[in-house]
Amino acid sequence: MKVLFAAPAHYWQPWAPHLRASCPEMELAREGDPAGFDALIYAPGYPEGGQALDFRPFTRARLVQSLWAGVERIVANSTLTQPLCRMVDPGLAEGMADYCTGWALRAHLGMDHYAQDGVWRHDQTPPLARDRNVVVLGMGELGRAVATALAGLGFRVTGWSQSGRPHPGIEVLAGPALPKVLARAEILVSLLPDTTGTRDLLNAARLALLPRGATIINAGRGTLIDEAALISALDQGQVGHAVLDVFRTEPLPPEHPFWAHPGITVTPHVAAETRPATASPVVAENLRRAMRGAPLLHVVDRARGY
Amino acid sequence: MKVLFAAPAHYWQPWAPHLRASCPEMELAREGDPAGFDALIYAPGYPEGGQALDFRPFTRARLVQSLWAGVERIVANSTLTQPLCRMVDPGLAEGMADYCTGWALRAHLGMDHYAQDGVWRHDQTPPLARDRNVVVLGMGELGRAVATALAGLGFRVTGWSQSGRPHPGIEVLAGPALPKVLARAEILVSLLPDTTGTRDLLNAARLALLPRGATIINAGRGTLIDEAALISALDQGQVGHAVLDVFRTEPLPPEHPFWAHPGITVTPHVAAETRPATASPVVAENLRRAMRGAPLLHVVDRARGY
Repeated sequence: MKVLFAAPAHYWQPWAPHLRASCPEMELAREGDPAGFDALIYAPGYPEGGQALDFRPFTRARLVQSLWAGVERIVANSTLTQPLCRMVDPGLAEGMADYCTGWALRAHLGMDHYAQDGVWRHDQTPPLARDRNVVVLGMGELGRAVATALAGLGFRVTGWSQSGRPHPGIEVLAGPALPKVLARAEILVSLLPDTTGTRDLLNAARLALLPRGATIINAGRGTLIDEAALISALDQGQVGHAVLDVFRTEPLPPEHPFWAHPGITVTPHVAAETRPATASPVVAENLRRAMRGAPLLHVVDRARGY
Repeated sequence: MKVLFAAPAHYWQPWAPHLRASCPEMELAREGDPAGFDALIYAPGYPEGGQALDFRPFTRARLVQSLWAGVERIVANSTLTQPLCRMVDPGLAEGMADYCTGWALRAHLGMDHYAQDGVWRHDQTPPLARDRNVVVLGMGELGRAVATALAGLGFRVTGWSQSGRPHPGIEVLAGPALPKVLARAEILVSLLPDTTGTRDLLNAARLALLPRGATIINAGRGTLIDEAALISALDQGQVGHAVLDVFRTEPLPPEHPFWAHPGITVTPHVAAETRPATASPVVAENLRRAMRGAPLLHVVDRARGY
């Protein structure tokens, strides 16, 4: 099995040893005749230089395995007709749960109320987690992991997804219930992908539905939020704080107003780090399935976009 | 049943309605003839003015119910011979779990690595919670709640207590294993009470046993830590960060060096807020037990000091 490692150069060192250990029968190369490869392991930014990869010469490839969970940039590549699979890394879901739970607790506890200025601010008592309403938008693999972690700490968690597909122990509401869901979101966590249905979903009208002073944690995609509407809602106190890990342009440009806004915390797209150690066995499993013609895991539905 | 509410004046408004609702048969007073009371609900700072309460005139009292979980100041009062019970509020344990979990995740995720200065610091990936060692010192009601919450998020949790009494799902080591326990504490959470055995337990020699760069979260009692040794360990990088909620003197004086040290976060004794709504039913249960001569809940062992 010949596999092209079609990812930016700095991916090679962390990934290659884990991929080879997980799939010793694979011949992993960084270049070669496109028609000679059985599959591609892919991440945007390859080839270097800004131009998107032309997938058409890979006539024999049975699988394009993304190293990223979010595939909207890949789906937009019209030369890609081979089966495309998203990264669903068990470590990624765990890391996402750590990130979202940590920032939710920071908001819940009001940690930023305390400054190191010699003033003993014993004037707030947060409610217990069981009296705090948290909403998770997007109940895929990641959203479910986050919702489960939050519910395990006692938070009142409501999930929301287009389908409203149930998840054990969590109330999950479907598409049309969005206004009702937003109205209870003291802390709103979004893991939604970037699709035509989610773009600018958090606009001025929807932000106005949140409880006053709500915290937003966006670890899905930056296109979810109307940026001007968010800044306006923060300035008016309608939104209390926003923790943003994803942006329309990444890295977020130094001159972007999000950096300087006191109501915004920027993290540099670290919530969903794919970890080679936990992800490589998943890649190996899909490569083997591709070779024997078995159903692939986590195939992207091009119509839905994820 | 006549009960004296022997707590500072600002306790009255939040507590009285919940106590009366939980125990309607009680006659709750803020003053009166000491010999006329069947029990006291007590918090240090009563009476106002700095002098400790003289418990000797309360000849009929069958119970002194503390509103605080930590009773070292009360135990030190030699006039107290009536049965003394600690506050064990189910809400308090939940709130403590929220606090310790939140600060542990803040350290785990390296949140403070990110500044809002326009620099995209995509250069650290924390391990997964399952690859992070967290130690909980003190495995009483509060320590067990914290250890369980942390283990639920996937952290590798080790508990330590004098007795080493087992707790489901958590490895608990006993007294002599302290050096071994400290050596694995990437994040060290202490819920230890103030006793002769815990005073200055974290001295220079013990801080040196921690993994380099460890985070300390102290939500037990301030006497646990040798203050000069902590500052020295922080200055040398042996300890990475300390989150301190409890101090030898509270409120922590504005001139205390902890406030200004970049490696220390001070919170104003908020981890273990006793919440009247959840605590009052526990008080009511103990009052009823005292009246009918039944065994009291959470009686303080004067020899151990908690």
